[in-house]
Amino acid sequence: MGIITVSREFGSGGREIGKRLADELHVLYYDKEILCEIAKRTNLNEGYVENLLNHQFVNSYHYNFRRSFASGTYLQQEAVKLLLEQHKVLRQIAEGKEDCVIVGRAADSALEKYKPLNMFIYANEAFKLERCKQYASTNEQLSDKEIIKKMRQIDKARAYYHDMVSDLKWGEKRGYDLCVNTSNADIKEIVPALAEYIKRWFRG
Amino acid sequence: MGIITVSREFGSGGREIGKRLADELHVLYYDKEILCEIAKRTNLNEGYVENLLNHQFVNSYHYNFRRSFASGTYLQQEAVKLLLEQHKVLRQIAEGKEDCVIVGRAADSALEKYKPLNMFIYANEAFKLERCKQYASTNEQLSDKEIIKKMRQIDKARAYYHDMVSDLKWGEKRGYDLCVNTSNADIKEIVPALAEYIKRWFRG
Repeated sequence: MGIITVSREFGSGGREIGKRLADELHVLYYDKEILCEIAKRTNLNEGYVENLLNHQFVNSYHYNFRRSFASGTYLQQEAVKLLLEQHKVLRQIAEGKEDCVIVGRAADSALEKYKPLNMFIYANEAFKLERCKQYASTNEQLSDKEIIKKMRQIDKARAYYHDMVSDLKWGEKRGYDLCVNTSNADIKEIVPALAEYIKRWFRG
Repeated sequence: MGIITVSREFGSGGREIGKRLADELHVLYYDKEILCEIAKRTNLNEGYVENLLNHQFVNSYHYNFRRSFASGTYLQQEAVKLLLEQHKVLRQIAEGKEDCVIVGRAADSALEKYKPLNMFIYANEAFKLERCKQYASTNEQLSDKEIIKKMRQIDKARAYYHDMVSDLKWGEKRGYDLCVNTSNADIKEIVPALAEYIKRWFRG
């Protein structure tokens, strides 16, 4: 086989699919593990690394165009360093030549030369809203409107981050080998078939 | 199970996937059969029906906006009648309650209330070009440029036809349950996994 990258819309169940696929295929799984490794290498707090990588680029975009060009510069530089470190970690994972599933981190773009199978998981807003509510922690009481706003913001940040490092557009099907709409699917049911698809795709 | 609709870019191998899926799943397969049925019901030649349904709407669009509003009107009316007949045939297939694969004919939209599994098959242009050349009849000698032009024209007609009868855009992943990129796939290899996906999707 090889490397499977999973990109996903927030609330679509993409992370669950990635984890279940790794289990089903008996391969390594990378998600937060990458952030943890970057944190270790840079001597920074993992939450700080995550926050910077996930939000700094979108924030700095807003800073640059809406406020002044100078603000946020230090954080922006630090975020670029983390991004390069992340690319290094991803490439080292690929060079390890072990089959694995990588969720997020624009791995489809960073690992292009290793010819991964790139998946995109998406769903309609009603489904994602329900899923978010189902998995929300009990002390997080957001209205539907607030959840939808948050979902859109997170996807916007993902798209922005991806499109900054890739020639292809985040979520545009042309950049993926398989796009799975979970709106009408039972994730536990479909994962074994997706695992079979992956095995056969690499064989072909 | 239920109804599986297969929409596809020209040259992507979508029709082959549809046919192989029907064989693998032991279900009925509809493609040209629908045109044949319409021809029978309307006492028209099948080629004429096909030509009118596939090209008249795009042509009439061009007529209306580029030439004069009057030209092509008779053909346009006839095409609308055929389109309604086609919807009738599709609904009768659905009412038959037999599992089946339907390729093209904007069946995803016409049969929406029967909750079909909608697939979209696509590929990059280089792959589609190669596939077109491989399957071209020996007396059809077109240059690469001509083939690409033809491919784009056909897809444009498909998109136009689809978007005329649907609220969703042809090829936009949101309208499909599964989008399969054949560029790096061996069709024979992946079909059994797709069949498995379909069975599990309907089960879930």
